[in-house]
Amino acid sequence: MHAITHYQEIVSSHFKTLSFEKEPKNLYEPIHYILSLGGKRLRPVLTLMATEVFNTDCKKALSAATAVEVFHNFSLIHDDIMDDAPLRRGNETVHEKWNINTGILSGDAMLILAYQYFEEYEPKVFRELAKLFSKTALEVCEGQQYDVDFETRDDVTIDEYLKMIEYKTAVLVGAAMKMGAIVAETSEENKNLIYDFGLNLGLAFQLQDDYLDAFGNPETFGKQVGGDIIENKKTYLYLKAFEFATPSDKQQLTQLFSIHLEDNFEKINTVKNIFNTTGASNATKKAIQYYTLKAFETLQKINIDDTKKDKLKSFGENLMGRKV
Amino acid sequence: MHAITHYQEIVSSHFKTLSFEKEPKNLYEPIHYILSLGGKRLRPVLTLMATEVFNTDCKKALSAATAVEVFHNFSLIHDDIMDDAPLRRGNETVHEKWNINTGILSGDAMLILAYQYFEEYEPKVFRELAKLFSKTALEVCEGQQYDVDFETRDDVTIDEYLKMIEYKTAVLVGAAMKMGAIVAETSEENKNLIYDFGLNLGLAFQLQDDYLDAFGNPETFGKQVGGDIIENKKTYLYLKAFEFATPSDKQQLTQLFSIHLEDNFEKINTVKNIFNTTGASNATKKAIQYYTLKAFETLQKINIDDTKKDKLKSFGENLMGRKV
Repeated sequence: MHAITHYQEIVSSHFKTLSFEKEPKNLYEPIHYILSLGGKRLRPVLTLMATEVFNTDCKKALSAATAVEVFHNFSLIHDDIMDDAPLRRGNETVHEKWNINTGILSGDAMLILAYQYFEEYEPKVFRELAKLFSKTALEVCEGQQYDVDFETRDDVTIDEYLKMIEYKTAVLVGAAMKMGAIVAETSEENKNLIYDFGLNLGLAFQLQDDYLDAFGNPETFGKQVGGDIIENKKTYLYLKAFEFATPSDKQQLTQLFSIHLEDNFEKINTVKNIFNTTGASNATKKAIQYYTLKAFETLQKINIDDTKKDKLKSFGENLMGRKV
Repeated sequence: MHAITHYQEIVSSHFKTLSFEKEPKNLYEPIHYILSLGGKRLRPVLTLMATEVFNTDCKKALSAATAVEVFHNFSLIHDDIMDDAPLRRGNETVHEKWNINTGILSGDAMLILAYQYFEEYEPKVFRELAKLFSKTALEVCEGQQYDVDFETRDDVTIDEYLKMIEYKTAVLVGAAMKMGAIVAETSEENKNLIYDFGLNLGLAFQLQDDYLDAFGNPETFGKQVGGDIIENKKTYLYLKAFEFATPSDKQQLTQLFSIHLEDNFEKINTVKNIFNTTGASNATKKAIQYYTLKAFETLQKINIDDTKKDKLKSFGENLMGRKV
């Protein structure tokens, strides 16, 4: 196995061979646009890695990996419409650059295109990939709906929140890896174990994202630190803080998370302070550790050489160290 | 083979067994809602009929038929958002009853659900159905994009218009029938012929829809007669009229199709008069006849008993006579 950059380069070269210079232009140009904005391509990289872990040429998994990345970008286009987001990866979102109708329709086309990439595989593998893909894609929609629903609820539990991020984010990480295992035609047990590895790593990663959004280094985090606090997003940190808070802290949190300010400096500091004093920060760090360890424990059960386990573990550690 | 109502009842009973009482409610309730608004269920009926025509129990095709109808309703939800339509089948559209975000996300979920209905079939049939479905679904998106693009263009040719209605409407009729043939595992030739039969019948039906929108009987047409004229929709009638018109007629048409009025009585009459005097009405009737005959000629080539051909022909005649 190689460094992550090795797989990123394979994915990147492959994406350059995909052609979206098709008619009608207004349907395909936005697809080309969003896919050319780049990103780390972590999901397709995981698909390739998983295939190689099970002793199969990772290039065999390129079409499945493409499906995962195209689906991910479909969900970004539609989510950005729903969130009314102006920017994606520092560039205009599709519905901003074109319009909402274009965003809807180009997104729809990408969801269909994702399925078409599986057509390269023979019937048995195709069916297995498409079935996992449909299950996962539906869960991602459900996760997005929970996320939308939670915005207007003030009684969201930690369990509900964990289910939401599992569906919205983690299942696709698990599925990306399982697809690699399906292409490699390994055992059912291995397929399920690598799915669980990806799922738990995905959960840990998302919880860490919540943590870094408040406590990350502005120079390396990539997003605006404090963004979730500014937008009153009830993340794991918030829910834990609310659980542990004194009545007066609860009141202050509720008040701060009901307002939108011009200058958020004071608000961010106050909220972060509550996150720390209530023990929410520590609880979040513990949860991140819990899911990371769970991922690594699952990894040990996979029937592969130790050197391969080490490589996957090292990928996980790099990911959680935000070094990829 | 039986009367159309026989298949409609089978479809209708089957739809009652589908459960959308799932969480999150805000995702699944709109799906239940749109599917319970009814409609004639012509596409799934065609799938069942096609299976039976090739000597297979039509109930074997119920899942494929469901996929077709669920996809059709997905496209209605997203199209209604794009067209800002308040009503669908006399009821509030999904985005009106809920909101645009719900319409987008529930629609996405339906597109995925459609693929899941194919999972009932064994790998070879599954792959063939999903492949045809993806190709068709992508064409429907392309057709919708052409339709949107044509709204702001004044140089649309007849050929472009025909391609648009082929993609937006006719391919799904062809695919619905071919899916029935795939489930019945008939010959490739039969599959392609029944696709062409459905495609041409779909084209004839859509052109007739254009015709009846201007010249239909308000009591039986089901939609508002003159609706396309009110909305300045450049249908086959308009494009043919513009092709044949004198310079002064052209000017009047252009002017009338650039305004929105409170009272459309005069406008509708004037436009219909131009449609008649230019020969556009006759040209449209000829085109309808052309595609209907093309469908029936294709039907003759299918390798099935004459009694079955007669039944399909009689379905086509009933459809074109708007008796179903």
